[in-house]
Amino acid sequence: MKATVMYGAGDVRVEEVPDPTIQQPTDAIVRVVAGCVCGSDLWPYKSLPASSSGRRMGHEFLGVIEETGSQVSGLQRGQLVVAPFVWSDNTCDFCREGLQTSCRHGGTWGHDLDGGQGEAVRVPQAAGTLVPLPVEEDSALIPSLLSLSDVMCTGHHCAVTAGVRQGSTVTVIGDGAVGLSAVIAAKRLGAERIILMGRHTARTDLGREFGATDVVAARGEEGIAAVQELTGGDGTHAVLECVGTRDALDTAFAVTRPGGTVSRVGAPQYEEFTMGFGLFLKNVNLSGGVAPARAYIPELLPDVLSGTIEPGKVFDRTVGLDEVPEAYRAMNDREALKVLVRP
Amino acid sequence: MKATVMYGAGDVRVEEVPDPTIQQPTDAIVRVVAGCVCGSDLWPYKSLPASSSGRRMGHEFLGVIEETGSQVSGLQRGQLVVAPFVWSDNTCDFCREGLQTSCRHGGTWGHDLDGGQGEAVRVPQAAGTLVPLPVEEDSALIPSLLSLSDVMCTGHHCAVTAGVRQGSTVTVIGDGAVGLSAVIAAKRLGAERIILMGRHTARTDLGREFGATDVVAARGEEGIAAVQELTGGDGTHAVLECVGTRDALDTAFAVTRPGGTVSRVGAPQYEEFTMGFGLFLKNVNLSGGVAPARAYIPELLPDVLSGTIEPGKVFDRTVGLDEVPEAYRAMNDREALKVLVRP
Repeated sequence: MKATVMYGAGDVRVEEVPDPTIQQPTDAIVRVVAGCVCGSDLWPYKSLPASSSGRRMGHEFLGVIEETGSQVSGLQRGQLVVAPFVWSDNTCDFCREGLQTSCRHGGTWGHDLDGGQGEAVRVPQAAGTLVPLPVEEDSALIPSLLSLSDVMCTGHHCAVTAGVRQGSTVTVIGDGAVGLSAVIAAKRLGAERIILMGRHTARTDLGREFGATDVVAARGEEGIAAVQELTGGDGTHAVLECVGTRDALDTAFAVTRPGGTVSRVGAPQYEEFTMGFGLFLKNVNLSGGVAPARAYIPELLPDVLSGTIEPGKVFDRTVGLDEVPEAYRAMNDREALKVLVRP
Repeated sequence: MKATVMYGAGDVRVEEVPDPTIQQPTDAIVRVVAGCVCGSDLWPYKSLPASSSGRRMGHEFLGVIEETGSQVSGLQRGQLVVAPFVWSDNTCDFCREGLQTSCRHGGTWGHDLDGGQGEAVRVPQAAGTLVPLPVEEDSALIPSLLSLSDVMCTGHHCAVTAGVRQGSTVTVIGDGAVGLSAVIAAKRLGAERIILMGRHTARTDLGREFGATDVVAARGEEGIAAVQELTGGDGTHAVLECVGTRDALDTAFAVTRPGGTVSRVGAPQYEEFTMGFGLFLKNVNLSGGVAPARAYIPELLPDVLSGTIEPGKVFDRTVGLDEVPEAYRAMNDREALKVLVRP
């Protein structure tokens, strides 16, 4: 089959790889109907050291079950399913706590395993991982359903762990696909005011459509001052940090209301940061992390199926598998917001 | 009257200062029945630059109302009251959210205002700040009631914001008065296991009496390994950081279970720290801050009055006002855990 392999920064190739086969009785093989490129794929695209072995890519996909191992219950051949971006048994203590990203028998796609940017994937712990979708593979809902693999659930995790609830005031930092999903999530949880910080008009316009009440295009000190002015100098209860840089985190802390929470879901490109006595006096909290998408799909799926939320609108381009290298380039150059891949 | 003034590191004096008088119609004058020295008073005791003006000291006290301003309702002359370590109007939006430490008309004792380590205090926003106590001033409960000024409420804040609940596993870092109060609070909230990290046997013994199930005397890597061993390599759900140093915070992160929360209530003696990709993958949260004691007194007071909790046991020495300098020395040299002052 064909699949995407990254051999180093900027070096993305689509090439023949071995067809996946059942290796454990808990495995399933899924033929990919839709995959996509993630903003987090752009970090290795910018910085991965060159290697001759390469890294299989893609952690978001939905597809049709082609085969199941002998111990896979609840799933049938021919069923359309979505895969969260981390696989998990969904039975261990962490999974039962809704933290499938820390599953005792879980892991992530790609690297030495199959990835979602390919024709098919061997899915470990299939019964715990895959969620059946009650639509056909040509459904118009495919993009929104695919977003449940990662971005929509990640935006939701950000809003949930920031404590967004009815009447909250919220700042969303970042107008990428996760930031825009976080706007959807904040609105869905009842936020009263949603200030979106981003400077790409097409994206912030989509953010307004999703529920942002204010847009701040400025960054840094100027951006902080703008949010403070909008909030009477207080900042907002919840700040959803959807970028992953130290600058974004610093901005987040500066616009948080006393007693409020910064939630970070952008994969952090930093280790150290400053959160000292001033934020201590303000009782500012920091939450977030890698989103347990599997935990949230059952809650979000009905809203996608009913059209109440339309996170699939973050996909502004669709390509075939051979065009995946071009998809990386377009996203990296910010020509495309998020690219859907139809193998 | 006499009051404690700190003129620089190690330079604590008890001297004559002006008697407090009503300055605003919302003020009250309280004659101090019991005050104390706080672990956080030791930071300036170690490092305050010398000055000729000095700083009035003490932010924990209870006493008898001697006079009230014309707009003070609900309080009468002769009433015994406890003061939280931050004064607040208890009516603004932050106060209504239970964050009296961010009150729009609040402030802290000492510095240029009266402090609790003196004979009397002018209390701004008296009606919002002071909580009446239904006992006489010679009650045996005075030490435990005094702890509601700060340490008991601070330990409680730490446990609450770390999410301690029925069945939680908890690590408490620090065997000072706040750490020991955090043990009481964790136990009171239903923690199933409480690992106390501290190396002063007399203090950790009191911690066991308060509810600690395990004591780890080792620090640093060795201490982390000990907690990991006690928890099967997972760490605990909640980690209550009651010291305030970067080392203590680093230890806290290293013993937190995935999905768990570090709450810090030790005044941070650092600005920067490391909380990068590894903790992001584990969904570790950071909460805490300066405790809104005023918010918690109504909940904790009945348990103190009934003797269900006995936080006053953290006081292991009582002195008169003239001996306050010696109290600082004894606490700084770790001869005394916490010193109660009877002016």
